[in-house]
Formats: sequence, C-alpha cells, structure tokens
Amino acid sequence: MAFSEFRPLDENSLIEYIKATPSLSSKIGHNYDGLKIKEVGDGNLNFVYIIVGPSGSFVIKQALPYMRCIGESWPMTKERAYFEAVALKQHGGLCPEHVPEVYHFDRTMSLIGMRYLEPPHIILRKGLIAGIEYPLLAEHMSEYMAKTIFCTSLLYRSTTEHKRAVVEFCGNVELCRLTEQVVFSDPYKVSEYNHWTSPYLDRDAETIREDYLLKIEVAELKSKFCERAQALIHGYLHTSSVMVTPDSTQVIDPEFAFYGPMGFDIGAFIGNLILAFFAQDGHAGQGNDRKNLFHQKFTALWDEHKNGSGEAYLPAIYNNPELQKLIQEKYMKELLHDTLGFGAAKMIRRIVGVAHVEDFESIKEANIRADCERRALELGKTLLKRRREFVSIGEVISAMKHIQS
Amino acid sequence: MAFSEFRPLDENSLIEYIKATPSLSSKIGHNYDGLKIKEVGDGNLNFVYIIVGPSGSFVIKQALPYMRCIGESWPMTKERAYFEAVALKQHGGLCPEHVPEVYHFDRTMSLIGMRYLEPPHIILRKGLIAGIEYPLLAEHMSEYMAKTIFCTSLLYRSTTEHKRAVVEFCGNVELCRLTEQVVFSDPYKVSEYNHWTSPYLDRDAETIREDYLLKIEVAELKSKFCERAQALIHGYLHTSSVMVTPDSTQVIDPEFAFYGPMGFDIGAFIGNLILAFFAQDGHAGQGNDRKNLFHQKFTALWDEHKNGSGEAYLPAIYNNPELQKLIQEKYMKELLHDTLGFGAAKMIRRIVGVAHVEDFESIKEANIRADCERRALELGKTLLKRRREFVSIGEVISAMKHIQS
Repeated sequence: MAFSEFRPLDENSLIEYIKATPSLSSKIGHNYDGLKIKEVGDGNLNFVYIIVGPSGSFVIKQALPYMRCIGESWPMTKERAYFEAVALKQHGGLCPEHVPEVYHFDRTMSLIGMRYLEPPHIILRKGLIAGIEYPLLAEHMSEYMAKTIFCTSLLYRSTTEHKRAVVEFCGNVELCRLTEQVVFSDPYKVSEYNHWTSPYLDRDAETIREDYLLKIEVAELKSKFCERAQALIHGYLHTSSVMVTPDSTQVIDPEFAFYGPMGFDIGAFIGNLILAFFAQDGHAGQGNDRKNLFHQKFTALWDEHKNGSGEAYLPAIYNNPELQKLIQEKYMKELLHDTLGFGAAKMIRRIVGVAHVEDFESIKEANIRADCERRALELGKTLLKRRREFVSIGEVISAMKHIQS
Repeated sequence: MAFSEFRPLDENSLIEYIKATPSLSSKIGHNYDGLKIKEVGDGNLNFVYIIVGPSGSFVIKQALPYMRCIGESWPMTKERAYFEAVALKQHGGLCPEHVPEVYHFDRTMSLIGMRYLEPPHIILRKGLIAGIEYPLLAEHMSEYMAKTIFCTSLLYRSTTEHKRAVVEFCGNVELCRLTEQVVFSDPYKVSEYNHWTSPYLDRDAETIREDYLLKIEVAELKSKFCERAQALIHGYLHTSSVMVTPDSTQVIDPEFAFYGPMGFDIGAFIGNLILAFFAQDGHAGQGNDRKNLFHQKFTALWDEHKNGSGEAYLPAIYNNPELQKLIQEKYMKELLHDTLGFGAAKMIRRIVGVAHVEDFESIKEANIRADCERRALELGKTLLKRRREFVSIGEVISAMKHIQS
C-alpha cells in the first residue's frame, strides 16, 4: 500500500503512488519517461486516469466519498470501490474474455488498477448512437451474463457457499439504496430529482404517478430487488457499462454489484437496447436475438452442471430428461418475466426520473425527442404491467415494432 | 462467563456454573438449599435443565455439537444456541407476551438461561392430541406471528437495517441446510432417512417421488426458502415449539431462525394443526379462524405503520386508501399461497420423511394410522400443487372436511 490513509489523487501524487506500487509500476516496465496520464472519468461517480507508457499501460479508478457529477453535497461511500473490485475479480474469474483484468486494489485508497481498454474500444452507448453494428455483441453479452449469473446462483453452488457470498455483498447496501430510489421510487412520485422533456411529457409523467397497476407491479419488483439473493449481479448493466470494438466486448463498472435477482441485469441491458431502438427509429437490430442466445447458453451451462454441486435441483430428484425440461422451461419463463419487468422499470426511469440517457438527450429538437420517449414509455408501461403475457423476446420485438409504426 | 471453554454440563457442574453466574444465581436468590434440578430435554437436539428453588426458577438449555437424538454420528454446530438466543431476544422484544425471557446467554458454552415455563404449561402438540381446546391460542399465535414477522420485514424497516440483520442470520446456514434436506429434498427422493407406515403407504410414498408437478412446485418453494430474505422467521414453528396453558401461549426453540419467507412460519404452524386434525378425526377446530386473525393483525400493523420507516411501500407513492387496499390484498394473497405451499411441504415431510409427529405416531393400529396419514397426504399434495387457487383459509377447511368425509 502506497499511502497509509485515504487521499484523493491528482496527476502528481498518482505518479508517486505508481512508483510505490510494484503491481502497477511493473505494468509500465518501471519506465516513467514519456509516460502519458489523462483523466477521463466521464461517468457520474469516479475519477479515472489512463496511464500509458512506452512499455505498457493501465487504468486507475478512484472512488471519492461523494458523487463526482454532483459534488460533496451528495455523499456516497467510497467503499463502493471494494465491491467493484471484488465483483470484477469474481466475474472476471468466471468470464475473463469479457471482464477487464484487475492488477491492483487498494481498499484504503478506494483505488483499482486495471487493464486499459485501448482504442478503438468505445462505450457501447456511443457506438449505438452512432449507428454502428456489433455483430458479436449478442454472442459476447449472452456469454457474459450466462456465465456470471449461472455460476453465482444455487444452480451451481451449495447453499453454504451462497450464504457466505451473500453476506459479503450485503455491505454494498448504500449503492443498492440508490437504485431503490432512482429506479423503483422516484419515477412514481413527485421528486425534486425527476425531470422530463417538458412540457411535452408533463401529462405522461403525471399519468405514471397515477397508474395504480403500474405502482403495484413496480412494488413487486422492488421487493424482489431487496429480498431475493438469486445471483451476484452487476447491478448497473446499461449500455454505458460496456466497452466495445467490433471484436471485443468488455463489461466495466460493477460498483452496484450485489446478490439480487438475475433479471435485473438482463433487464437493464435489454431495456437500454430498447431505448436505443426508440431513439434511433429502428436502427438497433442488435437486440433481436440476444435473449435466445442467453437462453441457449444459460440452459447449456445448466445441462452441463446438472449433476454438479448446485443445490437448487438435486440430481436425485430432478435428473430425468422430461422433468429437467419442465423445470428449465418454468425457470426460464420466470426469468424472462423478471427481465421484462426490470427492463421496463429501467426504461421508465430513464425518461421521467433523475438520470437520462444520451440516446435521447442527443436528440436536439424537444418535440421529436418527446415523441421517441413517449413510445419507449408506452412499451415500458405495457411490459411492466403485462410482462407475464409475453413468452419470448420475439413478442417483445413485435410490440416494439407495433408501437414504432 | 463461568467457564473459559466449552464443556457439556452435568447436574454437578451445572450448580458450579450457576454459582459463578450472577444473572442466574440471582434468579434463585443465591439460595442453593432445596434446589431441584431436572433434565427434561425431550426434543431431538439439546439438553434442557429445569432449576427450581424456594425463591425462584429458570431453565438452562445447552446445545451440544451433535444431534442429541442420534448422537455424535450426526454433528450439528452448537452455534445454533447463539442464533436461538438472538432470535428469542429479538422476537421477545417485539412480542414479550408470547416469548420466554432470556436471563443469560453464554456463547462459549452454547448455553441459554431463560424463564421456566411452569406447570400447567405443556407442549401444544400434547394438548392437541389429548383433545384439549385452547380458546386463546388463535389470538395469541396470530399476535406472535403478525408482530415478529411484520416488524422484521421491509414493511417496517429500512433496507439498511434489513441487510444488516440478514447478514447476522446467514451464519445459521447449517440449520437452514437441515431444513432444505428434510423438508424440500428427502421426501421427494429415495433416502435412507425416509420412513412411513409400511406397507400401507408404500405406493403413496412412491407416487410422491414420481409426481413431476409436485416436485416442480416444491423446487419453487425451496428457492424461496434459500433466496428470499423477507423477515426474521422462527424457522421451526410446529406445535412442539409452542407451550400452552388455557391462558398462556409461549413460543420456544427458535434455533432455526433466519431471514426467510414469512409463509414458512405460518405454513409450519397451520400445517401441523392440519396434521392434528387428520390425526383426530375432526377434533381440531382450533385452526378454523386463525388465518383471519393473523390477516387482521398483520394488516392492522401495516395500517398503523404505513407512514413509518418501512421502505417497501413509500407513503409518497402508496399512501392512498384505494391503492393501499389493493397493495395489501395482493401482498396477503401471495402470503396465503406461500403459507399453503410451505404448510403442505411440512405435512408431506412428516408422513414420508425422516421425522414424524406424535399426533400420528400415537395411533397404535398401523392401518388406521395409515388411513389418517393418507388423507393428510392427499390434502398436502393438493395444497402444494394448487395453492394459487385458494383464496381463503375457509376454502382450505372445506377441502379438509371434504377429504375427511
């Protein structure tokens, strides 16, 4: 450890820190001539430095005890860096192809040293806004989600391992509470943080606050989010938590990670793809077959490990092909419904809640933006209220097209 | 602390221990003349001593690192005494009328000193077998369940408090695993521990192992048991965990306590009352209006605290009488279905699993016993598979009477 107590780094103290940290200095061959340092944290929360030297590179991410985008008036535990580091290591162990390697973690400094995702890696959301197609994205993201979610669930683990892991991530409650507020609560009540494309969506926002059925359904999802420790989820898997090139897909920023419902991750990702679709007038074909791939990969892992140490379905009771098929169908159907519910909640909150998405925000004309947002809102409300009537992602895509036309 | 390391007590070392422990010796006025000590542990797990002197009394319960009824060949953590003591104190704080007071806890010795439930207190199961009616039982048990369950849920608590509490009880995983095995697994597969009234029920036991729908439904309940941290439940709330007189109802033995689904406790209690009914040819009118009382008390607590610190349904979103009513109806309906599912699983496991109930075991003629058990099994299977079709306890009672007739 380079420093004995927490202090926010700047570019000068950063060099000092790297020199005192062998796991970092070795990455640049202990060579400080021609070292380039650039602060690039464009997210809402943290400081991110890219360090590039002639013989290597890495990234330093430091969490400060408040939200970067708002300042010291919105405190936020810097312990989130600890949960991010643990999640990166655990998910990285399960799916190293799609999670950047962690070189160094310093809990005192709330600091992670990790792989620099070099150009042409860009944030997926920006690629989608630019209309770039990523033919491998569905393959990669379904691989990432299936592996990380399956292998941290009771389909793969004993209940002893599971409860031990749950305990560790219960400590990340402060970030869970932020999600509870901005996803499940604020959009459904009057809140100083809410905003929307006004005046065009004033009535739409009001309608959401008056929709009993919507509020009843979102309460059920919130209960699941708070109570159901199903798997170690990323917790914030939107299209800005993914960096891509045409060949590479890397999932970053799991500081919201905890043991929660699987559908929250899948829903976050799909919900953000649907937002991209409505922002682009049909540009985002990306989403179309994603769930089928996830379904295939997840059930393939299940088949592969059905006689393993997972304790949800003991082989002595369920190891019969017909019964196994019925069990999987039921499990996957419920996971689809959770996914659609959580995905819908994420869509709604991005239109009438505190944090919006660049997909829509980059549409300059407010009336055009409002039309796109209203369509997404309409689908979100339908999915949240009637998610149990959907049996496939194909039906969701039909509903998207129906609203779009 | 009287001893610096764990040792099983006997009647001699017990006196030594009491003398060295002011919180216990004060209970008998430090008076050892005429002290009566009696070992009465008739349960499966622990040693229980009653200490009665001229000026006072108490009970000492000590957990040994194995199951008492089987011996050292079935190890079981003595840390269960810690979880029992914490649960007794927390539930006792919420409902002191129906939980015996803890005077002393010694974690090293896995030893609890607590109120002696003096005669005429008897185990409820024995009272029910003897055909005694307890007119206050429904009132008392619904009070106990409503208060302990409501006040440890997100209807009453913040998510911060909730996750902190969940963490503590995740440590009780070994006892949770015992439940997973004997309630949700063994009865549905061939297991050396299973037994039943043979040969009469041989075909019935086999039918259970071949019933796909039953096995699919019990897997869903097991997932809920393992994943859903809804409230601090007793974890073993059968009729042998309740001591009664006509005026007093005391819930004991919460060593299986953890954060799990509310319906597991209510179901355990109701399931055991239904077993008593089938063992008694209609003797147990006790159960008839219990759920209505629980429903009333639980929703009354909810109404009282709807503007409190509970975070499941924020007042700013849900504080509208009509919406509040809809939310409660949905919540209580789901709780009823969980209750019936878990209750059914508890009934089934008591007939074809490892541990049976005295209600049936005390029926000497095997063919008569088998007839009673088969009726209970039939109801258990119906409830487990079709629980979502029931809208009230009244309908369950009709189903009981229909099977009985």
